[in-house]
Amino acid sequence: MAYSAEALAKLVRGTYSGPAGLEISTASRIETAGEGSVTFLANPRYFTLFEETAASLVIVPEDFTSDVVKPIIRAKNPYYAFALVLQHIYPPPRLVETGIHETAIIGTGTVLGKNVAIGPYAVIGSNCEVGDNTVLFPFTVIADGARVGADCVIHSHVSVRELVRIGDRVIIHDGTVIGSDGFGFAPEGGVYHKIPQVGTVIIGDDVEIGANTTIDRATMGETVIEQGVKLDNLIQVAHNCRIGEHSVIAAQTGLSGSTMVGKNARIGGQVGFAGHMRIGENVIIAAQSGVSKDVPDGVMVSGTPALPHRSGMRIQAAVRQLPDLLKEFKQLKERIAQLEADKREK
Amino acid sequence: MAYSAEALAKLVRGTYSGPAGLEISTASRIETAGEGSVTFLANPRYFTLFEETAASLVIVPEDFTSDVVKPIIRAKNPYYAFALVLQHIYPPPRLVETGIHETAIIGTGTVLGKNVAIGPYAVIGSNCEVGDNTVLFPFTVIADGARVGADCVIHSHVSVRELVRIGDRVIIHDGTVIGSDGFGFAPEGGVYHKIPQVGTVIIGDDVEIGANTTIDRATMGETVIEQGVKLDNLIQVAHNCRIGEHSVIAAQTGLSGSTMVGKNARIGGQVGFAGHMRIGENVIIAAQSGVSKDVPDGVMVSGTPALPHRSGMRIQAAVRQLPDLLKEFKQLKERIAQLEADKREK
Amino acid sequence: MAYSAEALAKLVRGTYSGPAGLEISTASRIETAGEGSVTFLANPRYFTLFEETAASLVIVPEDFTSDVVKPIIRAKNPYYAFALVLQHIYPPPRLVETGIHETAIIGTGTVLGKNVAIGPYAVIGSNCEVGDNTVLFPFTVIADGARVGADCVIHSHVSVRELVRIGDRVIIHDGTVIGSDGFGFAPEGGVYHKIPQVGTVIIGDDVEIGANTTIDRATMGETVIEQGVKLDNLIQVAHNCRIGEHSVIAAQTGLSGSTMVGKNARIGGQVGFAGHMRIGENVIIAAQSGVSKDVPDGVMVSGTPALPHRSGMRIQAAVRQLPDLLKEFKQLKERIAQLEADKREK
Repeated sequence: MAYSAEALAKLVRGTYSGPAGLEISTASRIETAGEGSVTFLANPRYFTLFEETAASLVIVPEDFTSDVVKPIIRAKNPYYAFALVLQHIYPPPRLVETGIHETAIIGTGTVLGKNVAIGPYAVIGSNCEVGDNTVLFPFTVIADGARVGADCVIHSHVSVRELVRIGDRVIIHDGTVIGSDGFGFAPEGGVYHKIPQVGTVIIGDDVEIGANTTIDRATMGETVIEQGVKLDNLIQVAHNCRIGEHSVIAAQTGLSGSTMVGKNARIGGQVGFAGHMRIGENVIIAAQSGVSKDVPDGVMVSGTPALPHRSGMRIQAAVRQLPDLLKEFKQLKERIAQLEADKREK
Repeated sequence: MAYSAEALAKLVRGTYSGPAGLEISTASRIETAGEGSVTFLANPRYFTLFEETAASLVIVPEDFTSDVVKPIIRAKNPYYAFALVLQHIYPPPRLVETGIHETAIIGTGTVLGKNVAIGPYAVIGSNCEVGDNTVLFPFTVIADGARVGADCVIHSHVSVRELVRIGDRVIIHDGTVIGSDGFGFAPEGGVYHKIPQVGTVIIGDDVEIGANTTIDRATMGETVIEQGVKLDNLIQVAHNCRIGEHSVIAAQTGLSGSTMVGKNARIGGQVGFAGHMRIGENVIIAAQSGVSKDVPDGVMVSGTPALPHRSGMRIQAAVRQLPDLLKEFKQLKERIAQLEADKREK
Repeated sequence: MAYSAEALAKLVRGTYSGPAGLEISTASRIETAGEGSVTFLANPRYFTLFEETAASLVIVPEDFTSDVVKPIIRAKNPYYAFALVLQHIYPPPRLVETGIHETAIIGTGTVLGKNVAIGPYAVIGSNCEVGDNTVLFPFTVIADGARVGADCVIHSHVSVRELVRIGDRVIIHDGTVIGSDGFGFAPEGGVYHKIPQVGTVIIGDDVEIGANTTIDRATMGETVIEQGVKLDNLIQVAHNCRIGEHSVIAAQTGLSGSTMVGKNARIGGQVGFAGHMRIGENVIIAAQSGVSKDVPDGVMVSGTPALPHRSGMRIQAAVRQLPDLLKEFKQLKERIAQLEADKREK
């Protein structure tokens, strides 16, 4: 299929500059793009690739300049523009047929929306709700009383446990578990006694959750993932956490119980949060940090224990000088001893 | 449903003090508790919430005092008492019907106990054993020769691999894998050759394992999780490890091969253990530690490499002063140079 | 079953020294080996166990010496030799019957090789390919257009997503996800917009992947796991990564997007890699490292941020002396002040 450069420019609200009637057949990364490809440049670090690329069309920032003349689309946000182009050129394949597969099992009192695609061997419990156009891949479990909104895509082997509520346009990747029991035990008599986890999980609209991530239900009340949040793979969200809207968290990060993250957070991979932390809005947390104190609004932290990024970097730089410091320190001690000896001699 | 305050006091072996005939309908966290709720206070840090809470009944420590008079139950261990109340008010729902679902597949020579609940699309291999009252959720796999005890709950998508033995009253959450091959390869000729993992996994009574955790089978012999152990989500237990009874391990922690943890350990999240470590009894290991040396009985360690917590904290505090130290050090060098110059002048 | 010591020596191309006709019935670890067992010694640290072991036969290095005389097989690489013995004594059980289980669902246009074993409730999409002798355990999903080679073993609950290509002799353990969407979003207007992940994953021959690991598909192009790579459990491989041939990675390590690892890497557990890293060939990365800079060929790094291991160790040792240094530093300042005071008095 072919897409005209002018039409793509219109799609992304950009300005096309190049020969009329240019046709594009595919989208590629700039390093591997060939004839017929559209690609993009957003990061100035990669601007030098503009000259080299064999792409037929490049989406560039509005103020981009180059000595080389190539077909371009100027756009305010080239990365977002490229996302729109990809969405246009590669509409998601419907991998599960509309309708209810004959092997799917659906409990009593469950209400399914219009145009759902319930795949082979999906199991939906009693008194559930599944919204319009939602797709369930094979081996998904929607347990009793759970609700999945409209236009959702739930991939294979996902468990949505009892009473969990999921909003609209939510994507959950394979193997993820929503609503497993929180990790709560009362020690007594040398033995741990289970605290029944009688709360649930609420997931807002437009959330995407990666593969093999686990989100525990609340002990009482709710674990909440607010609208627009994006969670990567293998993340742990413990009972009674709340993640504020439009926050993004990279893979293998773990939140201990009752930690609250404000909206618009950007959290790296393999970060650990102690329990009951209060993380402000618009916070940035570097990968592998260990957050054991509250983080105020708008601050960037890094390291273990996590400190404001500037202090953290200064400390890290200082640590690297430490072996040299120890050597110098020894010399200094000798010089002082010499000065003291000289004094005594007099 | 309503529960009398007096009856709840009796249930938890506590002492009720408040109006006769007080009735409770629900249990809540102290921050959100309303009219008709029972809640609890165990941590003195939160005692100030006693005055504010709208709960109708609060379980408090035996020596708790307040100027405010409210209905209370005094209990020796309020957290445990509250666990008992929750277990009483919210008995676990039976989400899988008793009996064997018609879509379950059960191999030859397999023996099922009384009153089991084998859910839709459960697959049990040949020569397995499943004890009385045990519940298997959809898509569980119990592979050939495996044994699951009585009164267990095995959630959806759990794999219990061949020959694994699981005790009684064990709970395993969704997606967890018990008995995958240990990670063992012999390098030869620039290539890694698989060491067949011919051992198995033994899980004791009263163990609870979170979601998407992985426990590898032994190369030879057994990987052992002793009775009463509680494992959180996304934990890795490598081949030939042994975790001593009544130990608790938080999410995303990983044990390398042949590491032994003594009983009553309390291990935080995202901890890493090198292989062949010997961890004593009653050990505490702080979150995100990297344990590369044996830990003796009763010690608390933290940091990477993990050190006794006191030294670790002193080092951490010292590191934070390092940028200032470097500055001061520079000044000191100048003062010494000055002293030396003065001496030469004389 | 019994195996003659001479035959085992021949199998491993070693030299047997002991009584003729010695028969072995089982293989064990040296600590637990009894009468009738073969075991091995490779690490000089454990050579003292030679005298103590009750094993009937020990595979030892060619230059091994001991005052004690026991039946031995001298082999160039005893660990590899023992792997061969284990493979011989314990051929893998065929846990899934050859043929296609009646409950398996197979889409149109899909081609299955000879002698495949497609287990109960396996779901294979349309236009897939499954090679000769490959075994699919229950609840595997091979999505539309995916290809799995010959002689593969795909364990329960594995998701092989659409268009993924897997080589020959690949083993994938339970719950692993190959081809979930990469974590890519374009921020615009305070909201994250999904970048369609239209690439795929390619897995080479002789790769083994542990349980509950996740390998994301490329945004465009391919995420590549080259031949002979061994990945442990709970590993995260992000979109567009490439892991070079015969590299091994331990559990819970995470690679961010577009990171490239050269061949023959040995990477510990819980390591984190920033995105777009270039890791050379024959690199060793210690457990829990945080790799935020490229690593050249043949280097060993450790720590966070990861540094050449020697510097890292020197820094770590220096850090441990820091509390003492601070004390000494204070004394030094006093001595200098004293020297300065003395000077002024004169």
